[in-house]
Amino acid sequence: MSLINDLQWRYATKKMNGQKVPQEKVDYILEAIRLTASSSGLQPYEVIVVTDPQLLEKIKEIANGQSQITDASHLLIFASWSNYSEENINKVFARTTAERGLPADAMEAYKNMLIGIYGQQSAEDNYTHAAKQAYIALGTALAAAAEQKVDATPMEGFNNAALNELLSLEAKGLRSVVIMPLGYRDAENDWLVNLKKVRTPKEEFILEMN
Amino acid sequence: MSLINDLQWRYATKKMNGQKVPQEKVDYILEAIRLTASSSGLQPYEVIVVTDPQLLEKIKEIANGQSQITDASHLLIFASWSNYSEENINKVFARTTAERGLPADAMEAYKNMLIGIYGQQSAEDNYTHAAKQAYIALGTALAAAAEQKVDATPMEGFNNAALNELLSLEAKGLRSVVIMPLGYRDAENDWLVNLKKVRTPKEEFILEMN
Repeated sequence: MSLINDLQWRYATKKMNGQKVPQEKVDYILEAIRLTASSSGLQPYEVIVVTDPQLLEKIKEIANGQSQITDASHLLIFASWSNYSEENINKVFARTTAERGLPADAMEAYKNMLIGIYGQQSAEDNYTHAAKQAYIALGTALAAAAEQKVDATPMEGFNNAALNELLSLEAKGLRSVVIMPLGYRDAENDWLVNLKKVRTPKEEFILEMN
Repeated sequence: MSLINDLQWRYATKKMNGQKVPQEKVDYILEAIRLTASSSGLQPYEVIVVTDPQLLEKIKEIANGQSQITDASHLLIFASWSNYSEENINKVFARTTAERGLPADAMEAYKNMLIGIYGQQSAEDNYTHAAKQAYIALGTALAAAAEQKVDATPMEGFNNAALNELLSLEAKGLRSVVIMPLGYRDAENDWLVNLKKVRTPKEEFILEMN
């Protein structure tokens, strides 16, 4: 199978059947997320994996009651750094130089440039930048789930502030960005499953400048 | 090959060799982008494909002189809608209902809800939301390019306003978000190619709530 086939197979599943996704498939999807690209390699977000039924019920309440949250096997929550800090950036570069066997100050100029740039931007702009990186991961996670024939539904329709509070994210230096239930489609009861996937035609979506 | 293998193979190529990417591979990557997910299926961005050498030189000048822009085969520019408009949203839903063989007003309530939400938000917030959707596409494009063994470098380091002006994007209702050269690594002259890929360890990146 190819990525194109996987993308044609997947859809934003509206009704899941409660079946569990094997742990090795969940681990595969999480590893794809961990390996994907981010700006300057900072990976400014974490992924929270929720399976606790009571917690999922509470999350559903602040997510317009969307049934996939409790009919899913695992709920992934992408939560980005609420700000870029000198401490976080230093930590990434210390790890990178150590793992590459480089002198600790080998990337000092680049690191200090980043600390300067993010230090000048507002916390809100930094959060937005970090959140965008989590969307790269969302695109990667969708591809990984589809490759594993696991259904997934990207969801922005939840109360971010309430989710931050429920999971004490701000105390962890995080803010919720987007959530994604993983599970299996309930094909008999999903209104979307048999509807055609519609996309912008190529000629309206791609602009060539040759 | 699997997505995980592809992600391990790829890296943010720093030096490309000028070799052309076959058109069918470029088309494959663009089709993966076109098929990927977006909020409410609105696909609020376009992809501009630049191969004109003079134009690429001008883009390099406003992108910190990064050599991949002119050593690449094709440059992809992700440009999101500068705002959500009733016109754009209506167009998407008219297409969706027509292609699904539904009555034209079958999705009216949902469509009007979206028009209401985006109508209340500032243009800047709407642009940010649209830009995030382009980052899903960026994650998809990275996976597609790697699957095709095409190198790619996601780049945020350019002057957005200057690129908008150079390509007259604002007149098209667009603003530049992120760019991505496609090409082939110049392995002998790329300082990054042999350095270890470093990522946040799983135990710091994944948080389980069971």
